[in-house]
Amino acid sequence: MKFKNHISLGSIADLIKGKVLGNPDALVTGINEIHMVESGDITFVDHPKYYQKALNSDASFVIINKEMEAPEGKSLIFTRDPFSDYVHLTKHFRPFEASDKLISSKSKIGQNSIIQPGVFIGNNVVVGDNVIIHPGVVIYDHCIIGDNVIIHANTVIGSDAFYFKRYPDNFSKMESCGRVIIKDNVEIGAGCTIDKGVSGDTVIGEGTKFDNHIHIGHDTVIGKNCLLAAKVGIAGVVTIEDDVIIWGQVGVNKDLTIGKGAVVLAQSGIGMDLKPGVTYFGSPATEAREKMRELIAMKRIPEIIRKL
Amino acid sequence: MKFKNHISLGSIADLIKGKVLGNPDALVTGINEIHMVESGDITFVDHPKYYQKALNSDASFVIINKEMEAPEGKSLIFTRDPFSDYVHLTKHFRPFEASDKLISSKSKIGQNSIIQPGVFIGNNVVVGDNVIIHPGVVIYDHCIIGDNVIIHANTVIGSDAFYFKRYPDNFSKMESCGRVIIKDNVEIGAGCTIDKGVSGDTVIGEGTKFDNHIHIGHDTVIGKNCLLAAKVGIAGVVTIEDDVIIWGQVGVNKDLTIGKGAVVLAQSGIGMDLKPGVTYFGSPATEAREKMRELIAMKRIPEIIRKL
Amino acid sequence: MKFKNHISLGSIADLIKGKVLGNPDALVTGINEIHMVESGDITFVDHPKYYQKALNSDASFVIINKEMEAPEGKSLIFTRDPFSDYVHLTKHFRPFEASDKLISSKSKIGQNSIIQPGVFIGNNVVVGDNVIIHPGVVIYDHCIIGDNVIIHANTVIGSDAFYFKRYPDNFSKMESCGRVIIKDNVEIGAGCTIDKGVSGDTVIGEGTKFDNHIHIGHDTVIGKNCLLAAKVGIAGVVTIEDDVIIWGQVGVNKDLTIGKGAVVLAQSGIGMDLKPGVTYFGSPATEAREKMRELIAMKRIPEIIRKL
Repeated sequence: MKFKNHISLGSIADLIKGKVLGNPDALVTGINEIHMVESGDITFVDHPKYYQKALNSDASFVIINKEMEAPEGKSLIFTRDPFSDYVHLTKHFRPFEASDKLISSKSKIGQNSIIQPGVFIGNNVVVGDNVIIHPGVVIYDHCIIGDNVIIHANTVIGSDAFYFKRYPDNFSKMESCGRVIIKDNVEIGAGCTIDKGVSGDTVIGEGTKFDNHIHIGHDTVIGKNCLLAAKVGIAGVVTIEDDVIIWGQVGVNKDLTIGKGAVVLAQSGIGMDLKPGVTYFGSPATEAREKMRELIAMKRIPEIIRKL
Repeated sequence: MKFKNHISLGSIADLIKGKVLGNPDALVTGINEIHMVESGDITFVDHPKYYQKALNSDASFVIINKEMEAPEGKSLIFTRDPFSDYVHLTKHFRPFEASDKLISSKSKIGQNSIIQPGVFIGNNVVVGDNVIIHPGVVIYDHCIIGDNVIIHANTVIGSDAFYFKRYPDNFSKMESCGRVIIKDNVEIGAGCTIDKGVSGDTVIGEGTKFDNHIHIGHDTVIGKNCLLAAKVGIAGVVTIEDDVIIWGQVGVNKDLTIGKGAVVLAQSGIGMDLKPGVTYFGSPATEAREKMRELIAMKRIPEIIRKL
Repeated sequence: MKFKNHISLGSIADLIKGKVLGNPDALVTGINEIHMVESGDITFVDHPKYYQKALNSDASFVIINKEMEAPEGKSLIFTRDPFSDYVHLTKHFRPFEASDKLISSKSKIGQNSIIQPGVFIGNNVVVGDNVIIHPGVVIYDHCIIGDNVIIHANTVIGSDAFYFKRYPDNFSKMESCGRVIIKDNVEIGAGCTIDKGVSGDTVIGEGTKFDNHIHIGHDTVIGKNCLLAAKVGIAGVVTIEDDVIIWGQVGVNKDLTIGKGAVVLAQSGIGMDLKPGVTYFGSPATEAREKMRELIAMKRIPEIIRKL
């Protein structure tokens, strides 16, 4: 998430009662978790295992739980619990704003778009032209819907990421400040849920079509002209390239890439990157032809056992 | 879909700028895709592979992308893109009509039926007697709900079919003009989605009971007194006969028949017709007893490998 | 379910035209199905196979389809169809009450709680303090929501149990009179469904977090600080102890216990009790390490077949 106005590192340190290590007058341009950082951003790190990753990232500013000298070109804020302080900043800069009516007056609806009765559109949502949004759809704050998009009934766009940090006695929630961006000519089926990015954007690419009951996790980016059949579940931070076809009830684990034009057969479980143009099957999935050979061979095991 | 008034083939040809091959004064009684055609209907075909199927079907009229003599008893319309022209006709004869309130004044609600707050009922919907519709349910235009039906919260009845034709650079949508018909004494759980027929009807048979989160594809016909457990997904154009039991998270591929009284165990994936009265398991599924033998044998493979 | 005021066995027998075997003046304190009975409750039994279980249970009163002497300390009501009579009592003592607006005036909302537009809250619902309920959420009558709970859009709390008795020509519904209780600090994702107890309570324990599209069956009790990922389906009467983690698309069969700290990997199918602290995988699931060995061995079958 980018700030509307740049903010000095010193004033951010004041908000979380942290100690600046470096230049308090440097200007922070946005807040992002480590997967999404760009120059000018502030991020956080709270485990020695990831210190180097954070310090070598594109982030200009890091909240860290170790007092140390700031590396060249970066400034740090030292606090005892960087995760909680990062969440505190997220809530400060993007607070939850309750709505008092179904269509927020802070949202914009394009020309010739039809919003059916019973639709909720949150604050700062932008809906393009020639869109049809069916009854019961809920669009959380800050989401962007392109032109010629159709969203079927009771689908949810922009719900919070499922992202918690375990403390000894409970879980602490990573607040989401990202968005969902749905590009032009997308159709989303009924009863789907698409989570917003934790700090970046969840994106559904142009011309992609979703059947019903699909779940898309936070910060996942889907390419152009993909087809996702009913009940597919995609975890967070997945990249799906263009022209991918995923059949019904498939599950995809987090942090993966599915190559352009790959096909995933129904009920498969994807736990690794998939190559472009290849067809996969099984849970865990392998190339479909290999899986079919395994399944045929498996039927011969009772015979093998008799022979032995 | 049947037309309210019969329409001459010539006036239909005018709507899509096509050339009549045969009798322009012949009267067309309905529009249907090839799986559902009856005498008097107009359908389309756009691939030489399916020409004979269309020309030999019960349809009296065919939109086709080849100039040819009409076969005995049929008339044709020649156009360059029959798919697009068929979709154009569908939109012309059953245009999407936006609603301006939750319960359309063009719908009919039977006696003693309870419509809870926040329910959407579209145009030309008919709801029977003694029905309970829980909050957040969405019923699209033209659907028919029988007597003594219960529909739980946030279920969607009549969303569009997931049916797209691939062009080189994008997908073109087959518009749905069919309906969902829910017969008497059916109960539908919460958060389900039942798609309308593309041109025919999706039917849920008398006395059938659905758990939550079930998805039913377009033109699927389910018999009487079936039980479907939570999270079952059924693709389009499936026939499920009476007294079938399908346990949780099962997926069923399109264009299949599940025989009367068959039982499908949880998480199975069905890719072929199932025999009546038989129990199935696995993904892909086989008879459950055979599958159980396979699973037991599979546990002995490490031992076999050691022996060899 | 407990009655507000105790009721004499004789007046209950009158409601169902049954014959008291024992003391008609004894006071009945509640109505519960056999899994949940406590002293003072009335339950039912209609199959000789379960007579002894019912007569030896903690229930003080049993509706039974056999004329017999009441055992020591119990009284009976004899009827011909105890199931139907039990359902009749359930409907009598907890009738369905239609609502005429989205937020029932018979519900209580705590301090600083935010109810977004388009939320339905039924009769006798209690919502705690500092709660956020997102648009389109439906909460059926009698449910209880703790403090600091977040419920995402279009989730359904308290839908009816999926519980039917088969008669020769149809199914008869077991009416649900139980509740859903969501404890403090729980977060529920978007598009989830949590069924009420048939006569007891479905409970989500303190600090537990749900992703989207989760289904929880009737009378299931989930412990503290569990994580359930997207699209998990849990059947009825399951016990999930504290600190359990269940990954995406897992299915859990009814009447099971998952031990404290167990982990279930994605897409697994659970058909037996799981031990505490152990990781499971597969459908049907076994210990994950064992399953992984099986999967590796399976890939060697084609080689074994060649060798033989």
